[in-house]
Amino acid sequence: MNQALSKELKPTKNLTVSHGGCGSEEGLISVDQALQMLLDHTQSLDIETLTLDQTLNRYLAKAVYSKINLPLFSQSAVDGYAICAAPATLGMGTSFELIGEIRAGQNLEIQLQQGQAIRIFTGAKVPANTSTVARQEIVQLLDNGETRKIVLTEPLQSHADIRDVGEEVACGQLLADLGQKLSVGAIAALSMAGVKNIEVFKYPKIAVVITGDEVSVNVEDLASGKIFDANAPLIQAWFQSRSQEVDIMHVADTEQAVTALLNRLKNEYDLILTTGGVSVGDYDFVRPVTLKLGFEQIFWKVKQKPGKPMLFADLLRQDGSHCYLLGLPGNPAAVYAGMQIYTATLVKVLQGQKKLPEWFSGTIQHELKADTRERFLRMTVQFNDGQLLLNSLSKQQSHMLSNLMHANCLVRVPAGEKMVVGTKLQGLFI
Amino acid sequence: MNQALSKELKPTKNLTVSHGGCGSEEGLISVDQALQMLLDHTQSLDIETLTLDQTLNRYLAKAVYSKINLPLFSQSAVDGYAICAAPATLGMGTSFELIGEIRAGQNLEIQLQQGQAIRIFTGAKVPANTSTVARQEIVQLLDNGETRKIVLTEPLQSHADIRDVGEEVACGQLLADLGQKLSVGAIAALSMAGVKNIEVFKYPKIAVVITGDEVSVNVEDLASGKIFDANAPLIQAWFQSRSQEVDIMHVADTEQAVTALLNRLKNEYDLILTTGGVSVGDYDFVRPVTLKLGFEQIFWKVKQKPGKPMLFADLLRQDGSHCYLLGLPGNPAAVYAGMQIYTATLVKVLQGQKKLPEWFSGTIQHELKADTRERFLRMTVQFNDGQLLLNSLSKQQSHMLSNLMHANCLVRVPAGEKMVVGTKLQGLFI
Repeated sequence: MNQALSKELKPTKNLTVSHGGCGSEEGLISVDQALQMLLDHTQSLDIETLTLDQTLNRYLAKAVYSKINLPLFSQSAVDGYAICAAPATLGMGTSFELIGEIRAGQNLEIQLQQGQAIRIFTGAKVPANTSTVARQEIVQLLDNGETRKIVLTEPLQSHADIRDVGEEVACGQLLADLGQKLSVGAIAALSMAGVKNIEVFKYPKIAVVITGDEVSVNVEDLASGKIFDANAPLIQAWFQSRSQEVDIMHVADTEQAVTALLNRLKNEYDLILTTGGVSVGDYDFVRPVTLKLGFEQIFWKVKQKPGKPMLFADLLRQDGSHCYLLGLPGNPAAVYAGMQIYTATLVKVLQGQKKLPEWFSGTIQHELKADTRERFLRMTVQFNDGQLLLNSLSKQQSHMLSNLMHANCLVRVPAGEKMVVGTKLQGLFI
Repeated sequence: MNQALSKELKPTKNLTVSHGGCGSEEGLISVDQALQMLLDHTQSLDIETLTLDQTLNRYLAKAVYSKINLPLFSQSAVDGYAICAAPATLGMGTSFELIGEIRAGQNLEIQLQQGQAIRIFTGAKVPANTSTVARQEIVQLLDNGETRKIVLTEPLQSHADIRDVGEEVACGQLLADLGQKLSVGAIAALSMAGVKNIEVFKYPKIAVVITGDEVSVNVEDLASGKIFDANAPLIQAWFQSRSQEVDIMHVADTEQAVTALLNRLKNEYDLILTTGGVSVGDYDFVRPVTLKLGFEQIFWKVKQKPGKPMLFADLLRQDGSHCYLLGLPGNPAAVYAGMQIYTATLVKVLQGQKKLPEWFSGTIQHELKADTRERFLRMTVQFNDGQLLLNSLSKQQSHMLSNLMHANCLVRVPAGEKMVVGTKLQGLFI
């Protein structure tokens, strides 16, 4: 044995060493159990008040009731003429004296009299005593220099083309319920109701810890058995695509380095996400360090592929708040699936949304062989004639990501039996 | 007529005034025609080189070929032992001399000899002459103080649990094609292949112009016939959800103000998005000003609801570049549909992707009455037993947005006939 090797040889304490299992061992929890434990063991964060423009993709912490009517006032739905007339006088050829004009945004104190009309534009407040609005397409304008009149070229209903005050939302009505996700459309709708400030759940402060001495930043290192890191860019882009920022750091595979870093982070962050170092290898320090630092293990190891040696742990801090740690395995496919399924769920739960992932259901178009673990396969989903059709991609192994150029969903394939063509499977869009 | 009114009365030039139509007039183009014209009349922007972490949701301007093999070297797929042995000697009970350890990220210059084994971890480079890898679960470690041996507790295949160099991607192989969208997964996969810089299409520089004197910023203005603006928050959130920033400005409903603003913007932006002021009303200045400033009208008015008086125009600048103008009507529902369907398509075309929207197909669960125009209705889609089931929401009028709290798709309903239960309709997820 050469010098370099003898330095690397680590003393073994027991004559017979038992190692962790390969995925078929007893006692692993299922994907559904793991997700349910995330929901059951995670407390939501506090509430904060933000201006509406800061709340994209947040969740409402309190129902919002409208302080105004929508529409705010009765208004014209068209460019045309507001008319005051008895219903019997709305036949073709009826004429009205034209007394002025009202534009959107104006609030003239006008009371129409019988036989009068006023030019009005879409969204403008209809004057008092308006019986109906004649859209400009059915009106002829007559101007003799002295007086101006309009003549109806078609008969007209009473109360036509008027948007009534409060017809969409009445003052005091529920606009958005507790837990509403503040999508683009939700923000637009709340803006229209004049909502400026809003109570939402805080977004967790998240630290991402990439473990692994094999990760290279520079091309020069590659000759030395290192690899390019996919996990940090993956996680950074994942949060960026959700308009969120996270702090990403790397740590060496030593107990000391992992301990020092996690000990600091546990006081500063709501959630620590780790990649790698969470299995039973001799250099897998995330779990032992986490336990040593006082975290309670909620679960470790899930019967899934990729991503079996996943850890979820909870630290109750002295002030009553929590730091959670989700330890994902280091293989990039495990990180990818872990982010889409577990991190997404956990981030929602921390924001008060105790909800399982919203799986779609699709039909697999080809046979899938059996496996002892539930699998997450990268697939394409096509929307064909009202159906979701699923096709799996090649290169699904846990160290491979290249098929993500073509995948648009992640599909759960149950353990045990082979899947025949036409089987319904659950998935998530990615 | 009172003083205030007479000031508002605008002289009419002709005795008989003809107004624009209500949606059923002849000559309007269809939604499909409008989308095709966006594709046909829009030039893509230039290319730029960015670091990979800046490219989320961009489109590749050039195919990317791998400069490395993936895996970069043959490596262990498990924590276990790399073994050098003839196939015949891999039965249960065979023992091997343990000569050291290799961790991921190390590159020891080792050549295994027949009968030797070395401790190895997931992702570590297998030494020369490795015949196979025994995962640690099928190995017993024997240590008599002087020499250390491992014994197989199960028979083992040759070449087990080895990830071969280049088995996922060979050096020189296509990694990502021209036009590839740089999703989270694509960025992760390119990172793993060591890609640092990447040629993408530029994202358009976009100005958003909100027209309309009726838009209020302050609650105090509301008594005066003004309304709260939904369009600016809607458009801002729409771009934010795509990790993009835009410049949003408001303009008064006067020809002078619109002219001054558009004249400045046309030299500085690739795309001007306007809301409101694009119909035939007396205060609709966007189209006449656009034409006066030298833009060519590509289309105006689409047979759709909401959003009929939509304008698309193109200005060829002296340097050969273009400024495009997409004029959306001012009703917030028209703006919402316009963003999801037309702006989304146009922004892609500007980035070299001449592609129509990727409509899904779903099945409507209830009857829909006929309309003279194609409609975009806000609906819910459920993924039930492999099918997409569509249900429409109430309050679909063009000034209403509150149903966006519940909608998750926008569905195209063809003009002309009523839709019976079970009809297949196209939609977009929102």
